[in-house]
Amino acid sequence: MINRDTRLPGEFELIAEFLAPLAAGYPDAFGLLDDAAVIAPSPGHELVAKTDALVSGVHFLPDDPADLVARKALRVNLSDLAGKGAVARAYMLDLILPHTTTRQWMAAFAAGLAADQAEFAVHLIGGDTNATPGPLTLAIMALGEVKAGAMLRRKGASVGDRVLVTGTLGDAALGLKALREELSGIAGTAAGFLADRYRLPRPRVSVGPRLVGLASASIDISDGLIADMRHICDVSVVSAVIETARVPLSPAARTVILSAPSLLTAALTGGDDYEILFTAPPDAAGALARLAQDCAIPITEIGRIEALGHGGRPDVTLLNDKGQPLMLARGGWTHF
Amino acid sequence: MINRDTRLPGEFELIAEFLAPLAAGYPDAFGLLDDAAVIAPSPGHELVAKTDALVSGVHFLPDDPADLVARKALRVNLSDLAGKGAVARAYMLDLILPHTTTRQWMAAFAAGLAADQAEFAVHLIGGDTNATPGPLTLAIMALGEVKAGAMLRRKGASVGDRVLVTGTLGDAALGLKALREELSGIAGTAAGFLADRYRLPRPRVSVGPRLVGLASASIDISDGLIADMRHICDVSVVSAVIETARVPLSPAARTVILSAPSLLTAALTGGDDYEILFTAPPDAAGALARLAQDCAIPITEIGRIEALGHGGRPDVTLLNDKGQPLMLARGGWTHF
Repeated sequence: MINRDTRLPGEFELIAEFLAPLAAGYPDAFGLLDDAAVIAPSPGHELVAKTDALVSGVHFLPDDPADLVARKALRVNLSDLAGKGAVARAYMLDLILPHTTTRQWMAAFAAGLAADQAEFAVHLIGGDTNATPGPLTLAIMALGEVKAGAMLRRKGASVGDRVLVTGTLGDAALGLKALREELSGIAGTAAGFLADRYRLPRPRVSVGPRLVGLASASIDISDGLIADMRHICDVSVVSAVIETARVPLSPAARTVILSAPSLLTAALTGGDDYEILFTAPPDAAGALARLAQDCAIPITEIGRIEALGHGGRPDVTLLNDKGQPLMLARGGWTHF
Repeated sequence: MINRDTRLPGEFELIAEFLAPLAAGYPDAFGLLDDAAVIAPSPGHELVAKTDALVSGVHFLPDDPADLVARKALRVNLSDLAGKGAVARAYMLDLILPHTTTRQWMAAFAAGLAADQAEFAVHLIGGDTNATPGPLTLAIMALGEVKAGAMLRRKGASVGDRVLVTGTLGDAALGLKALREELSGIAGTAAGFLADRYRLPRPRVSVGPRLVGLASASIDISDGLIADMRHICDVSVVSAVIETARVPLSPAARTVILSAPSLLTAALTGGDDYEILFTAPPDAAGALARLAQDCAIPITEIGRIEALGHGGRPDVTLLNDKGQPLMLARGGWTHF
């Protein structure tokens, strides 16, 4: 039985009540009262386009708070743009809703988007709403801009470049374990910190655009450090060596891993980090140190780019704190 | 039991085998080997962005041919761009697939996109693939371009403007009835024509961009003539009068409606027409006649724009062939 107060309104009312206010700050979205929006890059710039979809029960839990679902969906796209050196401008949203979706859910979802629009200076400019007999599904398409020809790519890493990463790794993967109560004996504050890192990514939007001109290749870490390093190596046709002892860990993650060293794998392959992994020539070190200070976000050198090995194939080698190669059972995960 | 030959490959293989070839003609998609694509409008132009999602069982039937599903999904977006006067450039695709999706389905789906990319000169530039426990779901985000400031809008219809429409109306709605065997005694060729018009929209991409400078307001007809006319009237703050006897019908639709006059409603409210409904000042008539001839697509005047009536609210009035107002039970449909 559906309570009339909580029942979702029709499509036009849903747009007018919950979505049109999110477009109010962007005149070329015409208040979502037209069929399309207009967007043009600033002079000398071009647009960077990215899309990511999320499915309830696959990418988030059905009872996750709606505002966090909204913010995560938006932030994973903003993270991609940051990893490409782009400044986010706008996004479109396809909302595919089961009939059980309530007005309360929509209100919280829209409030989450409103909060993040204010934080990240982006605007909803269009979208589509549909009913589904299946799980709630979201698709976000984000548009950012970079100077023409300057988008940071997976391609471009050169032999001798350093491998660097923003922030700390493994928090989200350990946070998911904490939420599943798979971490025994962890302090409540540490578990809370890690869970929050899983639930609400911090896209490195202040760092990403300033890597243009410094980074030779760049990607945001969603599949895990090793998998995303491999993505750079595959397209750049180089190999990478990563010193695991230098991988930056938060105090909470460090404590967890010290008590259960096998959990270091979470930091190397867990994914959902939404930090930026990039390569840069050694002489960028000074500029990168200043950038880290300006943005108050750590930038840590964790390895180096090398030529292809014997097999002639791109490879990612992990070294332990004695400089010995490590083996990994799995190199990240894919969606199928 | 899943046959190994038909089982869908993993995400990376799926992209490499089926989707990357669709990006081959667009260098700034980087072969789908990066995290985002680059797009910039031509000098003096801006981009027009539109998204539409389709859900299996809601917008198409689960056993509809995959190539037609792909082409319809792309074409409804191209129709929106045409209705805005934009030339389509590129699109992104979110594919949300049940585990039962087969390799054969994907191959046919990609072949459908390839055929339409060639026909409409657009390119896949990015996307996302995900698994779902629910129905197959697609989201397409299309990007086109118009001269800066020239996007045709729902807003702009003025008192005295004529109401015009491309092509013929009602074919798709009657085609759906034909597919459901709800049309008795219809000839096989007529049923086939109508069913094809339902399955495969013909977005009026040759006409739309040439309406820039001629049309005062414009929309593509997806919700039905009356509902989309109302959309123009609401935003333009005018009323419209439509002479139903002038609504253009295909020979097949005319035959069906002559034998069952109540089916005229299908032409007025059925939707899925993907023709362009627009308004233009009377002095555009000559240019519009030449445009129709150039494009070999009928452009028919079906009514006029009037001032708001007594109530001060936008309204759409239908007149029968004697100039008397008609009543309609419903003015189109929404998705909820």
